[in-house]
Amino acid sequence: MNYKIDNLQYCNWSKEIFEINHEAKLDAVHATICYHEDFDELQINIEQWKKYFEDYSSLIFQGFNSQDIEKAKQENKTAVFFGLQNCSPIEDNIDYVEILKKQGVLFMQLTYNNQSLLATGCYEKKDTGITRMGREVIKEMNRVGMIVDMSHSAELSTLEAIEISQEPIVVSHANPSFWHQGLRNKSDTVIKELNNSGGMIGFSIYPHHLKGAENCSVESFCEMIAKTTDLISTKQMGIGSDLCIRHPDTVVEWMRNGTWTKTKDFGEGSADNAGFPPQPSWFEDARGFHNLDQGLEKVGFNEIERNNILGNNWYNFYKKFDQ
Amino acid sequence: MNYKIDNLQYCNWSKEIFEINHEAKLDAVHATICYHEDFDELQINIEQWKKYFEDYSSLIFQGFNSQDIEKAKQENKTAVFFGLQNCSPIEDNIDYVEILKKQGVLFMQLTYNNQSLLATGCYEKKDTGITRMGREVIKEMNRVGMIVDMSHSAELSTLEAIEISQEPIVVSHANPSFWHQGLRNKSDTVIKELNNSGGMIGFSIYPHHLKGAENCSVESFCEMIAKTTDLISTKQMGIGSDLCIRHPDTVVEWMRNGTWTKTKDFGEGSADNAGFPPQPSWFEDARGFHNLDQGLEKVGFNEIERNNILGNNWYNFYKKFDQ
Repeated sequence: MNYKIDNLQYCNWSKEIFEINHEAKLDAVHATICYHEDFDELQINIEQWKKYFEDYSSLIFQGFNSQDIEKAKQENKTAVFFGLQNCSPIEDNIDYVEILKKQGVLFMQLTYNNQSLLATGCYEKKDTGITRMGREVIKEMNRVGMIVDMSHSAELSTLEAIEISQEPIVVSHANPSFWHQGLRNKSDTVIKELNNSGGMIGFSIYPHHLKGAENCSVESFCEMIAKTTDLISTKQMGIGSDLCIRHPDTVVEWMRNGTWTKTKDFGEGSADNAGFPPQPSWFEDARGFHNLDQGLEKVGFNEIERNNILGNNWYNFYKKFDQ
Repeated sequence: MNYKIDNLQYCNWSKEIFEINHEAKLDAVHATICYHEDFDELQINIEQWKKYFEDYSSLIFQGFNSQDIEKAKQENKTAVFFGLQNCSPIEDNIDYVEILKKQGVLFMQLTYNNQSLLATGCYEKKDTGITRMGREVIKEMNRVGMIVDMSHSAELSTLEAIEISQEPIVVSHANPSFWHQGLRNKSDTVIKELNNSGGMIGFSIYPHHLKGAENCSVESFCEMIAKTTDLISTKQMGIGSDLCIRHPDTVVEWMRNGTWTKTKDFGEGSADNAGFPPQPSWFEDARGFHNLDQGLEKVGFNEIERNNILGNNWYNFYKKFDQ
């Protein structure tokens, strides 16, 4: 059986988006449900998701483990798995890790760009690595089966997370910096250590992570994937598209600034390019998985490899965290 | 006019404590009202303080600025100023700084031992210095007149706070490490930079900060103060006794562990010395200010210098933040 999985989306969720993902034949999506929310605020988001699951039950349901991906395939639906791009919902309380796991949170980033209580984000000047609380929280995430995600983390923090975690970790949505320099993209060292530790990288199609931004071609993107096999096994790569469609630009402003600053921060953008960037034409939404499949074939991946990259690898990875 | 000020106490507040402080002729006390609380939890503590101010109005009232120290002297009471040993109450929301200042929070530590969103604590292995959010928050504290306190912070973070802040900052309760090595005590470099920037150091009488712990003599303590004049002006030193009396040991356990770890942390103590340490005989409570005065005289401080160290310096420092 082959599964198709997009391991990172943060769309302005609606019937339309769920229909698009259905049309794209996605069996599972890892959906971001938090950027800056604290525990209580996250509960509001989870309530909203419960409503989506009720209202669009013919298209989606909540995923908790790998069996739900199989179920999605059988029922011709998309299983939606919750993930946090920030550790803000656990606040300073390690007990919240288990509570959130029980609510279905499968992924948690230890940082979102800035320094957190757990680790350093990729936009900070200096990088402490994993903090005292971070070490404790990784241990607890390992215990309860929550996956450590270091997509927005700084280099040393990422390497230390790989080393400290007893379970493999992920970079759910980023590209190699050898292809496109960017604070968010990952060094050869990080990708090799992901490989050595059984971790996963999900390639991102968010324009700021692409060489040439929205003008990046599917050929260039797939050539990058082919080249990345020098660093990490084809069985440890997947897609984490970082698709953020249908949002007004106020959302990306909030993602970048939250409530932590009074000086406007433009993140990967700039004052004259502050909004969400347009998607490349070959991935305007998840239906672009079809173009990825063709592109991967052109650069020489065989059918098994393509199916692995487009979903089976994530399915096998999720399986390791079934409890 | 001379003022007597203890610029750090965290006692198990009661009529008895307020009476002791009154007997000690303290015109002002900087009282810790937070170690781990978030914004909402802090409101509960502030409500409790409002009740203290009502119930013991013949002994204490809330202080907001230097005029309240003068008023306390005139009315023969103690003005209690609020301070936070942790930035946890501002959560990730910079707007809470101004709200808390309006509620009377005059001091805020940027860290309490661990890494915070703002800076690195003294117990972390690596020190990022001031984070992206930290820089913004210092600016905001400067704007609203809240004093930066780096007592529990790591070296680089402390030096960067001094550099970044447009206003002088404090180490409200710590001693020089030349006298007693300890993660919480401060290097010559930090004390010199406090001096150069117009900051203050408050000498601590918490046994873990003392050479010889509870067996430290008042002579040794006062000799240390005399020697510290090689690093910082006598006009920039005061007392921040860190007096934590009448608490059960569960409180120090909570101070150290909060909710951030499942592995018990013993802080400055140890598994076989986990509780609050006993106070030295010459400072079992604030009435020990009398012994300090005598001790400072013995090591050669004149009356003006003694009065400065025992309170006038803090009074003059508070004055700078009147708005």
